[in-house]
Amino acid sequence: MEKQYKIVLDTLGSDKGAVCMARGAALALEKFPELHLVIVGDEQLLRAELADADGSRITYVHGPDEITNYDNPAMAVFTKPNSSLVKALTTLADDPECVGMINAGSTGALLAGALRYLATPDMQRPALAAIVPAEAGGFVCLVDTGATVDCTPAQLVHFAHLGKAFMHDMYGIENARIGLLSNGKEEGKGNKLVKETYALLKADESLNFVGNLEGNNALSGDCDVLVADGFDGNQIIKCTEGTAKRLIKDIVKLSKKTGNESLMAVVAHLMKLYDFNSLGGGIVLGVRKPVIKAHGAANEQTVVGTAEMLLNLAKNKTII
Amino acid sequence: MEKQYKIVLDTLGSDKGAVCMARGAALALEKFPELHLVIVGDEQLLRAELADADGSRITYVHGPDEITNYDNPAMAVFTKPNSSLVKALTTLADDPECVGMINAGSTGALLAGALRYLATPDMQRPALAAIVPAEAGGFVCLVDTGATVDCTPAQLVHFAHLGKAFMHDMYGIENARIGLLSNGKEEGKGNKLVKETYALLKADESLNFVGNLEGNNALSGDCDVLVADGFDGNQIIKCTEGTAKRLIKDIVKLSKKTGNESLMAVVAHLMKLYDFNSLGGGIVLGVRKPVIKAHGAANEQTVVGTAEMLLNLAKNKTII
Repeated sequence: MEKQYKIVLDTLGSDKGAVCMARGAALALEKFPELHLVIVGDEQLLRAELADADGSRITYVHGPDEITNYDNPAMAVFTKPNSSLVKALTTLADDPECVGMINAGSTGALLAGALRYLATPDMQRPALAAIVPAEAGGFVCLVDTGATVDCTPAQLVHFAHLGKAFMHDMYGIENARIGLLSNGKEEGKGNKLVKETYALLKADESLNFVGNLEGNNALSGDCDVLVADGFDGNQIIKCTEGTAKRLIKDIVKLSKKTGNESLMAVVAHLMKLYDFNSLGGGIVLGVRKPVIKAHGAANEQTVVGTAEMLLNLAKNKTII
Repeated sequence: MEKQYKIVLDTLGSDKGAVCMARGAALALEKFPELHLVIVGDEQLLRAELADADGSRITYVHGPDEITNYDNPAMAVFTKPNSSLVKALTTLADDPECVGMINAGSTGALLAGALRYLATPDMQRPALAAIVPAEAGGFVCLVDTGATVDCTPAQLVHFAHLGKAFMHDMYGIENARIGLLSNGKEEGKGNKLVKETYALLKADESLNFVGNLEGNNALSGDCDVLVADGFDGNQIIKCTEGTAKRLIKDIVKLSKKTGNESLMAVVAHLMKLYDFNSLGGGIVLGVRKPVIKAHGAANEQTVVGTAEMLLNLAKNKTII
């Protein structure tokens, strides 16, 4: 029998709810015969939803409490031990067969939980990376996008190593090109953090450092990994997404105003190109096992797409 | 006779060259009878180009040297005293009738020159603001966009005051809504700089502080002035522009691929909506007189548009 990969799926916390996540689970199980899902949430509801799925590749974990917007994210994993998030994280931490996890709830709670249950021995803070389509094709791993602000230069170098390992495991990229987010291309451009980090990256012989990149150029494909302080990485992601959405809205308005329906095909095309949703909201790196933080707006296809990412990672894993 | 406003135009440094700037000058003089242009550059060439314009509203200043990409921007105003930039700045500084200046050359040289010749008595660093169209209509003044990185909280508060005065003078906005660029809306979100600035802005009773805003929301129109460290403001501008250009390129590709020519009308529409060029690359605030830094790609219409901005500012001037 083909080797099986166990992935943990937290079904609570997303906008569309557990039933939608369960339906996504069913689709993922159909698509990937090597997938075994450990599905966490309201067990009774999930068993009912997945009655027709391949039960031999499902493990149910009962974690009925949901972490909501009213919970303090940093404290939620302490105050809600019966939450699906805590149950999912502890399962991932304790079961050696589990290779990764999908969650679509509170990012803050997830990061706090990842630090609590999945920290590496050196206790480095987890990083939240975004995988963004590059203009030239392929993808760019932007890290950090919000887990840590006020980073030190050493942390940014750590992000470079995490991103390099990820791009190898995910896409088979050898010796990923590392870019440093700055406000100008020339060496010496940037704020204090960037200048100090530049020197460290340049000196690190294990990294293929390509220099400073400005936000929009970096996402063109001039690098495979773009490192930045979490505050700045967060701006890039939100700004790129926000601008894309805004232009798409402008085209929809124009389509309605002019009655030109062919514009809606353009909208569909662009939404596919810029579909941040299907790639996952972000992936937690620098922890013992990868955790994908899907957008709160995750749908069935999100589960399929994120399961596929985790399967790829597990199959190609870098030993670091 | 109607009151005249003198505006200084530096014709050197742009991609399209002095002849294009001169043609823009002619158009601006036609459109604004109250405009008197002090045109700086190669005097002989300019006199020839403007032979047919209203000579009673033109003053020529000979400043033949051009500051190029090979000059060190911070030093250029010292090493090239016969540059159009230095002549333009000193004219603006020394002639009480001059109300503003337009330049389309090196931003770094301009900022260094603005500090040297136009600093206010308190010697605050000039700020570079971008005027961005807001999704809801109207404009947002984003400051700082690259003049100063590693800002202090006090500098960000200063930006708020500069932006407020500008939005009053430019658009007649009373009590501009001040937003603070952060990575989350809630009070307490942000890096160290943002948290400390938040407290100061909140405590400043002369400011209408609306709280933290995330980059894409801020440009939606939830504030009139968005303050940020120059590094972050620069990211917002470059990212927004880069993403808009990228989507527009995608639509052009799609138009060619499908043969759907109506898409080119969409392209034209979007380029107009997102025409950063016509609004000027940025405006230097916090100096004795306003200086508009137009995009290097400035054309004739840029001169007309930026002259109009400076005329508005002069007519509505806030005494601060």
